[in-house]
Amino acid sequence: MTGRAEAAYAVLRQVRPLHQHAARVVAEDLRGERLTLGSRAILERLLDVGPQTVPELAVWLSVSRQAVQRVVDEAAGLGFLEVRPNPRHRRSHLIAATDRGRRVFDDVHRRELAALEEVAADLGTDELAACARVLAELNGALRERLDGT
Amino acid sequence: MTGRAEAAYAVLRQVRPLHQHAARVVAEDLRGERLTLGSRAILERLLDVGPQTVPELAVWLSVSRQAVQRVVDEAAGLGFLEVRPNPRHRRSHLIAATDRGRRVFDDVHRRELAALEEVAADLGTDELAACARVLAELNGALRERLDGT
Repeated sequence: MTGRAEAAYAVLRQVRPLHQHAARVVAEDLRGERLTLGSRAILERLLDVGPQTVPELAVWLSVSRQAVQRVVDEAAGLGFLEVRPNPRHRRSHLIAATDRGRRVFDDVHRRELAALEEVAADLGTDELAACARVLAELNGALRERLDGT
Repeated sequence: MTGRAEAAYAVLRQVRPLHQHAARVVAEDLRGERLTLGSRAILERLLDVGPQTVPELAVWLSVSRQAVQRVVDEAAGLGFLEVRPNPRHRRSHLIAATDRGRRVFDDVHRRELAALEEVAADLGTDELAACARVLAELNGALRERLDGT
């Protein structure tokens, strides 16, 4: 077996604990906020790409439509999101971030970046950026492989 | 906000989908095997560090002792693991991989590495190794931060 496969496996072995640790750090930062891990993820996606339908959000997050709908209902009730008519599908509404949602997300994300500044203090910007590129490439290749099966 | 925090965030944004994709690829590879994602993870840990107690495995995997116990019982029933007396704690037995467990893990892992060889074909061994080091550093720093809260 080549070194490349072993090196790729060494990357993947870090991913599960990193995912769990990062989620715990974000969740602790959200304590006392009305934003949850789920509504935070949906808000971020809507702010990145604009309004989306519930099925689109479900595919993006790899969770069920029902799970997305529950989070959307709650976040809409808090005024972070709003439901709009969809010009292309009469029955599939568009979910959009509100100005209030954007302000809440920006506040939370500013604190996350301040925490990351400390967490990553011993790492260089260049090596972090290179690592993100490698992960994006692996992600794309794995997704392609899954789509092909 | 500095570029370092943004770059660290770019890494973390890849982690959740990468975790999900990698788990799906491993799970598909295990179809038809009697090894599950859970027993595969426990076998790997035991083969890496030697016999462990159920509570030790639960901490390592960040799951409940009950969840580990269920997987251990099932994998022991299949002859992949065995339960041994613990010389240090009369009531907390040690879980150990059997020769059969090692053979099954090695088979599965050989196929995983062959798949990764294709998935990572466009990446260099050095950049993969550098990425794994960056992730390990982030993991350690996040864990320290969590232990401190």
